[in-house]
Amino acid sequence: MATLTMDVDPAGGLMDDYELKLNSYDLGVDIELADAVQRLRFEHPEVKTVVLRSGKEGVFCAGANIRMLGKASHGHKVNFCKFTNETRLSIEDASENSGQIYMAAIAGSAAGGGYELAVTADHIMLIDDRRSSVSLPELPLLAVLPGTGGLTRLTDKRRVRRDRADIFCTAEEGVRGKRAVEWRLVDEVVPPSAWEAKVSERALELAARSDRGGGRGVMLTPLERVISDAAIVYPHVRVALDRAARCATITIQGPSEVPGDLRAIHDSGAAFWPLAMARQLDDALLHLRLNEPAVGLIVFRSVGDPAQVLAADSLLEQYQTDWLVREIRLLLKRVFKRVDMMARSLITLIDPGSCFAGTLAELVFAADRSVMFSGVIADTTLHLSALNFSGLPMGNGMSRLACRFYGEQNSLTSAAGLIGETLDADTAEAHGLVTFAYDETDWDDEVRLILEERASFSPDALTGLEANLRSVGPETMETRIFGRLTAWQNWIFQRPNAVGEAGSLKRYGSGVRPDFSQERV
Amino acid sequence: MATLTMDVDPAGGLMDDYELKLNSYDLGVDIELADAVQRLRFEHPEVKTVVLRSGKEGVFCAGANIRMLGKASHGHKVNFCKFTNETRLSIEDASENSGQIYMAAIAGSAAGGGYELAVTADHIMLIDDRRSSVSLPELPLLAVLPGTGGLTRLTDKRRVRRDRADIFCTAEEGVRGKRAVEWRLVDEVVPPSAWEAKVSERALELAARSDRGGGRGVMLTPLERVISDAAIVYPHVRVALDRAARCATITIQGPSEVPGDLRAIHDSGAAFWPLAMARQLDDALLHLRLNEPAVGLIVFRSVGDPAQVLAADSLLEQYQTDWLVREIRLLLKRVFKRVDMMARSLITLIDPGSCFAGTLAELVFAADRSVMFSGVIADTTLHLSALNFSGLPMGNGMSRLACRFYGEQNSLTSAAGLIGETLDADTAEAHGLVTFAYDETDWDDEVRLILEERASFSPDALTGLEANLRSVGPETMETRIFGRLTAWQNWIFQRPNAVGEAGSLKRYGSGVRPDFSQERV
Repeated sequence: MATLTMDVDPAGGLMDDYELKLNSYDLGVDIELADAVQRLRFEHPEVKTVVLRSGKEGVFCAGANIRMLGKASHGHKVNFCKFTNETRLSIEDASENSGQIYMAAIAGSAAGGGYELAVTADHIMLIDDRRSSVSLPELPLLAVLPGTGGLTRLTDKRRVRRDRADIFCTAEEGVRGKRAVEWRLVDEVVPPSAWEAKVSERALELAARSDRGGGRGVMLTPLERVISDAAIVYPHVRVALDRAARCATITIQGPSEVPGDLRAIHDSGAAFWPLAMARQLDDALLHLRLNEPAVGLIVFRSVGDPAQVLAADSLLEQYQTDWLVREIRLLLKRVFKRVDMMARSLITLIDPGSCFAGTLAELVFAADRSVMFSGVIADTTLHLSALNFSGLPMGNGMSRLACRFYGEQNSLTSAAGLIGETLDADTAEAHGLVTFAYDETDWDDEVRLILEERASFSPDALTGLEANLRSVGPETMETRIFGRLTAWQNWIFQRPNAVGEAGSLKRYGSGVRPDFSQERV
Repeated sequence: MATLTMDVDPAGGLMDDYELKLNSYDLGVDIELADAVQRLRFEHPEVKTVVLRSGKEGVFCAGANIRMLGKASHGHKVNFCKFTNETRLSIEDASENSGQIYMAAIAGSAAGGGYELAVTADHIMLIDDRRSSVSLPELPLLAVLPGTGGLTRLTDKRRVRRDRADIFCTAEEGVRGKRAVEWRLVDEVVPPSAWEAKVSERALELAARSDRGGGRGVMLTPLERVISDAAIVYPHVRVALDRAARCATITIQGPSEVPGDLRAIHDSGAAFWPLAMARQLDDALLHLRLNEPAVGLIVFRSVGDPAQVLAADSLLEQYQTDWLVREIRLLLKRVFKRVDMMARSLITLIDPGSCFAGTLAELVFAADRSVMFSGVIADTTLHLSALNFSGLPMGNGMSRLACRFYGEQNSLTSAAGLIGETLDADTAEAHGLVTFAYDETDWDDEVRLILEERASFSPDALTGLEANLRSVGPETMETRIFGRLTAWQNWIFQRPNAVGEAGSLKRYGSGVRPDFSQERV
């Protein structure tokens, strides 16, 4: 059992020591939480239950600093919510898929982002001391939504009746005691005398559900990263910035060799290529999100030997029941979801010497468009592996290929028949795996045109377009959080009632009530 | 077969004769289209196929006037899109449920809103004359989205592959000929020589799929409506405006008597209470949306004999296979969906003398909160009918009660056992059918507090909250259009890149290119 204790602000549930550091994209407690969740998974295979608890002042809170929200740019607010949502979803991923099950033990006040964190847990306990409560006071206090998943989890996960959810979300003071259970806001209330014993008991019960085996953890060693003006360079990932063209090119370097067996994978630890590459790509994506807002276009390229990427994929398939391999697969899944959620245009170029195979081919299918070189040079190939069909689902639960061929079952079946084959550009295009194939006569001009045209459009309209087109088929709680809830929150984050000089985010804490325009739209 | 010919603007696909008249909420061609679709259903039972065709200049277009979008308030833009979306969905409702099947025959250019209208049809034909094309040029021309369902229908209905959809939505010139078929943008292209014959042939094929029987239509007589400063009064619906409290009270008058049999229903025609009430309520809702933006709160009340409402429901159940009764049920369904989509807080008060029974009880379940009087006066009752469980689904395909008890199957089953019973406040509250019951000691104060508190919150935050809480459970193409696509469009409609002085909507047609801020969020 591990306990994560939340940061505390004695002033009343809002963190004070929060600082906005764009260059190191420090999101304060949220970065710390994301890091802790990640480390627990890789470094502590023995931990089966994680208890989220209040800090020493009894405040259970990990959410936005309101001063930050009041001062930050619109883009930073949106990025903050997106990152926080991704972290909350990674907690649910740990409980569901990793055998590391989260519970929340609330003694004190779980308000706003704190309660939004609590509802990510599989079990929520609230001490029944006539004082401790849960609340989502965002609307009455700040005129914004509980936008890091809170609203959607109330209805879709906790199944709180909508009129009760309406009352809960408009009541500053929150709900406590038996009503909190009756309304399904928490799973149980416990008298103070039995509190610690009951928390331990529940933690053990949850642990009994876990299939996590224990063993020796893998240390997540610090990332090697060199940031210069025009590039961010990691061992396996290189980001080249062309700010004039508003374009970042991310080149993934394939593995030069892979371990021979499971034991060698464990010995490699954080240096095992899929794990190392995933962590580096993840870091690069977050860097671009927060530090390069004017870069509207990401071009994915790769360099290396496709056979080695496929060999790594084979290891991930062969040993998928091992806890570490499972964690690596789950991390890859989350990193590619981070790609899907980039509010940037994504173009993948498959050119000579590239290694878009299996796992890396996900960057072809995640892209808004992909183009493949079909010239006389022979070494331009695309390769599918089993991981392209399961193991790396999008937020809607479907593989990127199944989304691509949504409603075209024949195309999906025919793609599955290509696993392991070496596909040239014409074959890939004929099977619908890439958007277009161009030979040497057209390649340079066509690629240049795509990039130039993309840079000429409105960034906002592109963000909206991509958010819609990347999302097909069924919706899940996760897609509803990013699609419906986040889109509404982004809208509200621009409205004068929230961010204007007389709006609630600006006036919060000043003692002056906000002035609202009363127009409904 | 009926043919609806679209308005024409010889200048290039954008209507010129469009006028924004808020007081009569004239949405120009969109009101005309909505009216035509409605009349075809009720007045022409003999029409089995409706062909959407280009006007005399070959332009197939029914969408926003760009000058309107450039000048209108944010609220009006949002309302315009919502109404247009509702109309497009009513076309699909006619094809799917009413046996009046729409097809689109495009000879010329179907651009933007025109193509968004075409994709509502069950079958799309495009003439292959090297000139006619389909396009969604909103993004490159206007820096907004094809926001009246276009994007969602591309992916979810037409199943266009996402990279092709990306190209289509960023290409001003659109797609024509064989590629339009290959990309599934249209169902067939037809050479000019065979055009008229093929259009007729397809219309007859679709008609053969229809179960519509013919007979004598029911004329939709003009609504009786008296608008004064503080009220809008129809025979069965009264809207009382209290602008100081930002509140509109809509009181529905139940029927005083109902026809004895199917023939009497047909003889009553537009005077049959469910049809008359639905049309009046629909009109009142649209009036409030467009003419009273500062009224943030709608209170539903009713007056009448619940037994008569239930008698009307019985007729709608008993004769549901009759074409007219089917149309009335479908209209009621659409009107209650319009209620769900109101960007206003909805509170239903069940007090002495009310008749919230069956159909009208949908206003209890559509409300964000409902309160019921539990005092000594005996005539405060709630009644369920079969229509509360099927026949009046929300946009997600579920009944309002099933959404209310989402994940609480027992509560839903237990409610079904109450059909036909007379429920007092305590019983209704115990079964979760109303939010709270109050007796005479508390009623006045509690109701006043709810209304005053609601009026004190930010209208934008409430709109976002309600849009999320009213939507639980599965998502459909319809809910994705209103939830995901519309929310993004609303966001874009506020961004300086679209609506700023240098934005695309302001500069469109001026010959000056818009200046975009390049920040991605």
